[in-house]
Amino acid sequence: MTTSVQEAFELITRGVEEVLVEQELIDKLKEGRQLVIKAGFDPTAPDLHLGHTVLINKLRIFQDLGHKVVFLIGDFTGMIGDPTGKNVTRKPLSREDVLANAETYKEQVFKILDPAKTEVRFNSEWMNNLGAAGMIKLASRQTVARMLERDDFKKRYQGGQPIAIHEFIYPLVQGWDSVELRADVEMGGTDQRFNLLMGRELQKEEGQRPQTVITVPLLEGLDGVQKMSKSLGNYVGITDAPNDMFGKLMSVSDELMWKYFDLLSFRPTEELTALKAEVAAGANPRDAKVQLAKELIARFHSAADADAAELDFIQRFQKNAIPDDMPELTLQLGEEQRGLANVLKEAGLVASTSEAMRMVKQKAVRIDGERVDDARMVCATGTAVYQVGKRKFARIILS
Amino acid sequence: MTTSVQEAFELITRGVEEVLVEQELIDKLKEGRQLVIKAGFDPTAPDLHLGHTVLINKLRIFQDLGHKVVFLIGDFTGMIGDPTGKNVTRKPLSREDVLANAETYKEQVFKILDPAKTEVRFNSEWMNNLGAAGMIKLASRQTVARMLERDDFKKRYQGGQPIAIHEFIYPLVQGWDSVELRADVEMGGTDQRFNLLMGRELQKEEGQRPQTVITVPLLEGLDGVQKMSKSLGNYVGITDAPNDMFGKLMSVSDELMWKYFDLLSFRPTEELTALKAEVAAGANPRDAKVQLAKELIARFHSAADADAAELDFIQRFQKNAIPDDMPELTLQLGEEQRGLANVLKEAGLVASTSEAMRMVKQKAVRIDGERVDDARMVCATGTAVYQVGKRKFARIILS
Repeated sequence: MTTSVQEAFELITRGVEEVLVEQELIDKLKEGRQLVIKAGFDPTAPDLHLGHTVLINKLRIFQDLGHKVVFLIGDFTGMIGDPTGKNVTRKPLSREDVLANAETYKEQVFKILDPAKTEVRFNSEWMNNLGAAGMIKLASRQTVARMLERDDFKKRYQGGQPIAIHEFIYPLVQGWDSVELRADVEMGGTDQRFNLLMGRELQKEEGQRPQTVITVPLLEGLDGVQKMSKSLGNYVGITDAPNDMFGKLMSVSDELMWKYFDLLSFRPTEELTALKAEVAAGANPRDAKVQLAKELIARFHSAADADAAELDFIQRFQKNAIPDDMPELTLQLGEEQRGLANVLKEAGLVASTSEAMRMVKQKAVRIDGERVDDARMVCATGTAVYQVGKRKFARIILS
Repeated sequence: MTTSVQEAFELITRGVEEVLVEQELIDKLKEGRQLVIKAGFDPTAPDLHLGHTVLINKLRIFQDLGHKVVFLIGDFTGMIGDPTGKNVTRKPLSREDVLANAETYKEQVFKILDPAKTEVRFNSEWMNNLGAAGMIKLASRQTVARMLERDDFKKRYQGGQPIAIHEFIYPLVQGWDSVELRADVEMGGTDQRFNLLMGRELQKEEGQRPQTVITVPLLEGLDGVQKMSKSLGNYVGITDAPNDMFGKLMSVSDELMWKYFDLLSFRPTEELTALKAEVAAGANPRDAKVQLAKELIARFHSAADADAAELDFIQRFQKNAIPDDMPELTLQLGEEQRGLANVLKEAGLVASTSEAMRMVKQKAVRIDGERVDDARMVCATGTAVYQVGKRKFARIILS
């Protein structure tokens, strides 16, 4: 490891939410040995988007520093499913499901992670061996009061919403995984904070050095408001086609772009600082956005794909002279109001729906640079640039 | 079964605390089939006293009516011990401990129960096979809020005393035992009410007919105040020698005697009613007490032992003309104040400790009819008749 401890610490902690405890992490980095970095993943079919990669990027940084990542698939609880039967979408997974999903995970995460420094493990390895008595012993390690301190449990309990008893055991299962793996560091989303700390407690009880807990923030979706999520339609999937990635990333606001740079780019901090300074001094933020899009496409596809996507974008979109500045507005419309003609009218791009119909017929309406031929189409929620004629543009966030 | 359903119901429910649900029990008795009557016992070394036999007597009544008793030893949790390690007296039991304790149980309970209609079972049979995943599924069957309804949990939670999570699972384990055994009836102490109802709930969920829950009251000890317990010293052990049993039972108050009759005697209700009427009409309650003592000694030893104990008691005790009526008083004294001389003085049987010393020297002091030769002896806690000279008596409850 040629990177200094100070540099390593800065790389690791850039953009993270919290490090518990910072000094412990520094001490561990100083030791110069290969650390075990744990991150847990659901065993359900993975379909990763950029939001997930915030965490995976950090794991990659640890690997670049010489450390080992344990990519832990929580198949033990996945194979139980939702025992209350209330959540029909959480059906128990079979052994075959789990292994198939693990392969899908690998295909996706090895676009970021180094397979040589990644160990894929399944917690059923040790959890199944615990037995019924071992599970009771595990449950005995925490109190009801401590569990009810967890934010979501507290709210549900106070709100009279049922909490099944086994839900108190799941954080302990996650914590026990850290004991079994002798994790030096565990990373997770901010929503995992309580469960990550459980690992520290159990490790201490077992006489192990407690893992350092690092939480990463949730990434906002393309709308810049809600967290990136497939169901909200505001995501960039890591298997999205290069052209789609490029278009989606170019649609984010200039402000959000910097957040994406911080959390998704592997560029050194100095380069980002310089880039920000350039834009502040008057450089076109669109050019920075192009660089971000190309870096990400190169990561998930190839550098050639990134170049091609840029070219395609210019041909399809910039040729149509999209201005750097345009009105941006949010429209909250029910599905029956999201007909294209109505959206254009609500956005003030046309005076009436009949004008909208006429403009579509004249092939003068575009969404994200793509010509629209059907005035009755229902517009998708999310962010897109709507164009009428040569000069009227609006970036509309439909929700 | 020749006993009518109505008679059976009355025999079963005499002196019990609660039947949930009465009509269900009547329906089950009407069916004429052999019912499965479940009662659970701790797998720790048993040393049964009359307090325990209240429940066992009821089981015997079910057997006399033709039903099968499942004497369930909760060895699964016993072999776990106290996983928090806080209770050092609850060490995990080995398989050998459990089997040895089961033999001790049998020796004792088969003085009451009919071995031919008793099945001794261990819940480790099915609980160990549940596995870690099965234990989680079991835990998922109840909510945290429901568990916190249980009186002791509620008090501890509100009082800020810790409740370990596995404590929420134990009632479910007990309930699951009822599912495995397809119990028709489960009996237990009043403190078991919540856990017994858990069996009903789980059986319903499993599509079984819910067990009828019968709770029996806790038996007061010889002092008539606190529950009978070895540690309080107010007990009659079922392996106590006949003379000890006789003496202890003769020391109970006339009022408590009737409670003992109700809960410990197998005499038909009409006989008890008649006996009460006789005493109310002026018969000596001491004679009723003798009958009670002899019935119990005959049960745990033999009829001949009962006769011998009575004779011995008369020789030792009644010859000394112990009056039927005497002052009864409770003395709360620390151990250093329980020297005989001081007790006699506190009870007003002597004017001073030096008088007490003198009376002992003159062989004029007796405790429960036994002459005392050492004025410095420390009196045991519990109830005893203290006598100074020919005429001064007091029944003293030392605590």
